[in-house]
Amino acid sequence: MKRISIMGATGSIGTQAIDVLKDNRDQFKLVSLSAGRNMDKLREILKTVEPEMVSVMDDGDRKALASEFPAITFVSGESGLDAIAADDSDMLLTAVMGSVGLAPTLKAIENGKDIALANKETLVAAGGLVMNAAKKNNVNIIPVDSEHSAIFQCLRGERHSEIKQLIITASGGSFRDLSRAELDNVTLADALNHPNWAMGRKITIDSATMMNKGLEVIEAKWLFDLETDQITTLLHKESTIHSMVEFVDNSIIAQLGNSDMKLPIQFAFSHPDRLPMDNPLDINALSQLNFKPMDFERFKMLELAYEALKIGGTMPAVMNAANEYAVDRFLKGEISFLDIEKIVELRMEEHEVIGEPDLETILHYDKLFKSNMR
Amino acid sequence: MKRISIMGATGSIGTQAIDVLKDNRDQFKLVSLSAGRNMDKLREILKTVEPEMVSVMDDGDRKALASEFPAITFVSGESGLDAIAADDSDMLLTAVMGSVGLAPTLKAIENGKDIALANKETLVAAGGLVMNAAKKNNVNIIPVDSEHSAIFQCLRGERHSEIKQLIITASGGSFRDLSRAELDNVTLADALNHPNWAMGRKITIDSATMMNKGLEVIEAKWLFDLETDQITTLLHKESTIHSMVEFVDNSIIAQLGNSDMKLPIQFAFSHPDRLPMDNPLDINALSQLNFKPMDFERFKMLELAYEALKIGGTMPAVMNAANEYAVDRFLKGEISFLDIEKIVELRMEEHEVIGEPDLETILHYDKLFKSNMR
Repeated sequence: MKRISIMGATGSIGTQAIDVLKDNRDQFKLVSLSAGRNMDKLREILKTVEPEMVSVMDDGDRKALASEFPAITFVSGESGLDAIAADDSDMLLTAVMGSVGLAPTLKAIENGKDIALANKETLVAAGGLVMNAAKKNNVNIIPVDSEHSAIFQCLRGERHSEIKQLIITASGGSFRDLSRAELDNVTLADALNHPNWAMGRKITIDSATMMNKGLEVIEAKWLFDLETDQITTLLHKESTIHSMVEFVDNSIIAQLGNSDMKLPIQFAFSHPDRLPMDNPLDINALSQLNFKPMDFERFKMLELAYEALKIGGTMPAVMNAANEYAVDRFLKGEISFLDIEKIVELRMEEHEVIGEPDLETILHYDKLFKSNMR
Repeated sequence: MKRISIMGATGSIGTQAIDVLKDNRDQFKLVSLSAGRNMDKLREILKTVEPEMVSVMDDGDRKALASEFPAITFVSGESGLDAIAADDSDMLLTAVMGSVGLAPTLKAIENGKDIALANKETLVAAGGLVMNAAKKNNVNIIPVDSEHSAIFQCLRGERHSEIKQLIITASGGSFRDLSRAELDNVTLADALNHPNWAMGRKITIDSATMMNKGLEVIEAKWLFDLETDQITTLLHKESTIHSMVEFVDNSIIAQLGNSDMKLPIQFAFSHPDRLPMDNPLDINALSQLNFKPMDFERFKMLELAYEALKIGGTMPAVMNAANEYAVDRFLKGEISFLDIEKIVELRMEEHEVIGEPDLETILHYDKLFKSNMR
C-alpha cells in the first residue's frame, strides 16, 4: 500500500488525483492533503475520503473544519504545508499553482519523499536546486504533466546517453488557428476555451500564449538532464501523441492516449507498476493526426522561454514570475492578451541575472518583482 | 565486438544487413554468410567484406568461388547451412525467404546463438518449437521485421503482464486504395509497386494481399507470448508508426521512423545498445498520419491467418506453404491476384490438422503439400 499526500487537492489536478485514489483504494492510502481557500470543494472532498491530516491557508477555516470533521487533524498556513511535507507518506503530489509550491516541495524531498510533480514552476524557477536535492536524498521526481509523463514512459528501459532529442508536442492552445494579427481582438472567454484539455485557468491561458510549452521545455531540461538544443517542440493539434523521444539510431518512441490527466496522475502514483484504468483511446477512431513545425514568430513566448533557459540563473524564475503576474492581470480583465508577452519580455529585459541562486534569492525575486509591478 | 552470421545474404534484408555491418566495423565482425543461387550479387558482396566462411546452394558454385576467393572457406548445400548454424558467431541473422530457414535456425538456437529473425515463416510454421528451443537454450530471438522491432522496442522496460494489446500497423500494400471489385484486373507489375517500402518480391505481394500482416500477427503471438485476441491490426498508410503497444492503464507506446529496414536490422545487431545512424525521420515534415480500422472483408487473407492461428497445430504451416506456392505462381504469371487467396482458402479447408507437430511433421507437410499442388 503506497502512502500518498496531495498538496493542492481542490484544483483540477488535485481533484482528479483524489478520483484516482478512490478508484484504487486497495493500492493507495491518502495520508494528507492541503487546500488553499476553496472550502466548498474541500468539504466535498472530505465527505468522500478520510486523510489523517489536512492543511488549509487560513486559521479560521482550520478551526471551523476541525469541529466539522473531528477524526481529521487540521493544520494551517506555512507551517501547515511544512507538516504535510514532513508526514510519513511515501509520495507527495505537488499540484498547487505557482511558486508557492517550491519551498514545501524542497522540504518533502529533504524528508525523503518521492515527488509526483504537477507544479511546473518548481523546476522552472529552481530546477538546479530541486534536482540536486532529489539526487542527494535519493528521491524520484515523477512528472505528472502529460508531456513529461509521456517522455518518462518513452525512456523506460532506455539509456540517457542514447537520447538524441525530446520532441514535446503542443496543441497550439485556444488560438492555434489565428494569425498574430488576429490575436489583437481575442477575449478572456475565447482564451479559456481550450480545444483538447479541461484544465485550470492559468494553464489554459499559458497554453494559448505557448508559455506553457516554454515552461515545459525548461522543466524537461531539468527532469531529463539534457542540453537545451536536445529539446524541441512540434505542433500537433489533436494532442493524441503526448510527446516523443528520438534516439541516436533515429528510432522515435512516442506515447499516445486520450486527453485525460488521470492517466499520468495514476502512472506517477503506481510507477513502476501500471494499473488498469477505464476510458481507453479508441484506436479505430484515430483517423488523422496532424503535425506542423513550431512557429517561433507566431508563438513568441516560447522563444522567450528558450532564451531564459539559455541565460539561466535567476532568469527563468523572473520570466515565470512576470508571466504569473501578467496572466493574473489578464484573468482579471485588466490587460489584453498580447500585453502578457509584452510584460514578460520587458521584465526579462530589465532583469540583471544572478547565476546559481539559492532558494532565498529565487523567492526574493519572485515576490519583490511581483509586488513592484502591482 | 559482436560476431555476426547472415543466412540469406544476397536478398533485400541480407544486403542491407551487410551495409549495416560495413557502417559499424568497430562494433561487429561478419563471421559467415550464406547465399542461394545469386552468384553475381554474392561476388559483389565478397569484394567488400571478408567473412571466414561462405555457404552456397550448389557445389559447382562452391568450387568456382573457392578458387576466386582463396582466403574464404566455402561450403555448400544443406550441410553448408548447418556449418553456418554451428560456427562461433554470437548472433545469426536469418534472412532467407520461406520455410528453408526453419531447420538451420533451430540448429543455430541449439548451438546457443542469438537469432535476429527476418524470416517470418520460421515462427509461422513452427512457433511453438522455435520458442521452446530458444527458452531451453537461453537464446534471444530479436525481431527484424519493422513491426515486431517496433513492438520489441515499445516493450523495453515494460512488464509482460501489463500488456493489454499489440497494435500492428498495416500500410495496406500496393492496392490499399482499390475496392475488392477492382482487384479482379490488377497486374503483377501493379502488385510489385509498394507505396512505402522497397522489399523483396514475395513480401511485396504478401503486403498487397495482406497475408504479410497475417504472418506478422502469428509471428507476434509467438514472439511476445500473447493470446490471439491481444493482437490487433490498424491501417496506417504512411507506415510512419511502425507499431504500438497498449498497456492496461490505456497508455499506448509507439515506435516511429523512416521506412528504412536498416534501423531494425541495426537494432537487432546492437541490442541492448542503440548505435548512431544516418537518415533520420524529419519530424518537421511529418504533416499528417492517417489511420483506418482494418477491413477484414476487403482483406480476407488476414482473416484466414487469424483463423489458422486460432486452429493452431499444422494449420499455420499449411496456410503458409499454400501461400508460398500461390504467390510463386502469381509471380510467374500463371494465376490472377485473387486466385492467391482462393488457393490458400481451399488448401486450408482440405487440411486435417495435426496438433503439436514436431519439426519433421511440419517439414513433411510443407514439402508434400507443395509438390502435390504443382
